[in-house]
Amino acid sequence: MDMPTLTLGQFSLVFNVFSLTLAAFAASTIFFWMQRDRVAPEFRTALTITGLVTFIAAYHYLQIMFDWKSAFTLADGAYVASGAPFNDAYRYVDWLLTVPLLLIELLLVMRLSRAETVSKGWLLGGLAALMVLLGYPGEISSDDGTRWLWWSLSMIPFLIILYQLFVGLGDAIARQPAESRGLVSAARYLTVVSWLFYPIVFVLPMLGLEGAAAETALQVGYSIADLVAKAVFGLLIYTIAVRKTEAQAG
Amino acid sequence: MDMPTLTLGQFSLVFNVFSLTLAAFAASTIFFWMQRDRVAPEFRTALTITGLVTFIAAYHYLQIMFDWKSAFTLADGAYVASGAPFNDAYRYVDWLLTVPLLLIELLLVMRLSRAETVSKGWLLGGLAALMVLLGYPGEISSDDGTRWLWWSLSMIPFLIILYQLFVGLGDAIARQPAESRGLVSAARYLTVVSWLFYPIVFVLPMLGLEGAAAETALQVGYSIADLVAKAVFGLLIYTIAVRKTEAQAG
Repeated sequence: MDMPTLTLGQFSLVFNVFSLTLAAFAASTIFFWMQRDRVAPEFRTALTITGLVTFIAAYHYLQIMFDWKSAFTLADGAYVASGAPFNDAYRYVDWLLTVPLLLIELLLVMRLSRAETVSKGWLLGGLAALMVLLGYPGEISSDDGTRWLWWSLSMIPFLIILYQLFVGLGDAIARQPAESRGLVSAARYLTVVSWLFYPIVFVLPMLGLEGAAAETALQVGYSIADLVAKAVFGLLIYTIAVRKTEAQAG
Repeated sequence: MDMPTLTLGQFSLVFNVFSLTLAAFAASTIFFWMQRDRVAPEFRTALTITGLVTFIAAYHYLQIMFDWKSAFTLADGAYVASGAPFNDAYRYVDWLLTVPLLLIELLLVMRLSRAETVSKGWLLGGLAALMVLLGYPGEISSDDGTRWLWWSLSMIPFLIILYQLFVGLGDAIARQPAESRGLVSAARYLTVVSWLFYPIVFVLPMLGLEGAAAETALQVGYSIADLVAKAVFGLLIYTIAVRKTEAQAG
């Protein structure tokens, strides 16, 4: 897809949001890893993985930030496409690695039986990877029919994940200790709300939204959705682990 | 805003101050994180966050240092604007992330009740983020009226923060143990004095101060204010945590 010509303000806004997102992910990673010693040993794997998710995201935002800079040239007071491609695949590679891990974080902090953690982990992780993989052929196509086909296919695992979070895991959430039940439930609502952003953004070009303003909104929107789905979600996971640790000690 | 032509001395002074600031923030970060095990467990989150603030600042000074270099070209013995923009937004992105965290450091080291920490954290952190966001539209405007408007709006959350630090938290500071009460009180004075620098610098161009000397003074001044507000403030937080740890042990 050719990049549209951006104003100085649009280019800078996106660049600065990428830089903020990179800094926030790097800082979150260190926070989750450093604070591992503040939770009981059985929650430390969850925090390791929570930090891995933001670490992988920080790496990809570093690459995205460099790509954004090289995809444009400043000419006559505007940023025009330089001819160098802006690599959309970084986002898909990021999601392929991090989205299964996000669901595994949630399972680990819930402390289900080992058998249940393993079976739900494979099921939800596999569905999440499938969801991302099925979206990609649509993302790189500029044909609306092709985009709708892969979008629809990708929505199937997404809907199964939602079903699992709200029905399949319903019992397990009801069995959570009182001090963390509300937070665990909030974590799955945060998952749904932040994840819904991606299929909506995907269909915007099919509805005719293109050009400089749409590109700017899309990049800013993806960054905010990523921050909520990974860093804010991670803080919820951390808080659940701290609460459960305190309840054990008390 | 176009960059003025700088003398060799002005350009180098700013560059070297940026480099000093970067080195000082990187060193502070490592100090705060490495010394976590010298304080009682309940103060370790405060030191994690203290180090995150200087870590995020180090990242932004690295970017600012590179930007400064690319914004000028050496020509005929002077540094003239190269046409590449000097990105003012790095400072605002930095403040947006770090200023709420600075207030949270202070709350964490005070050891209030959980409910009070959470409610004051959201209040002060939210006000701090609002203060930075309201300053930005003024910063990027070259119209004095627009600058005064956003400056005034930004001062509202600033004044509420001051009120909270000196009245809202007054009781909590009076309840601090004797060995750290003076330091906690000093931390809030340091906050006010170092933070006052920013709105003053903001109005300098509106009072007619422009050109090479003003730009040099502004960049050096911002760097010193950042060092005081983040690294020196962090050392105070660290000292409070050490004193409280010793008092518990004794």
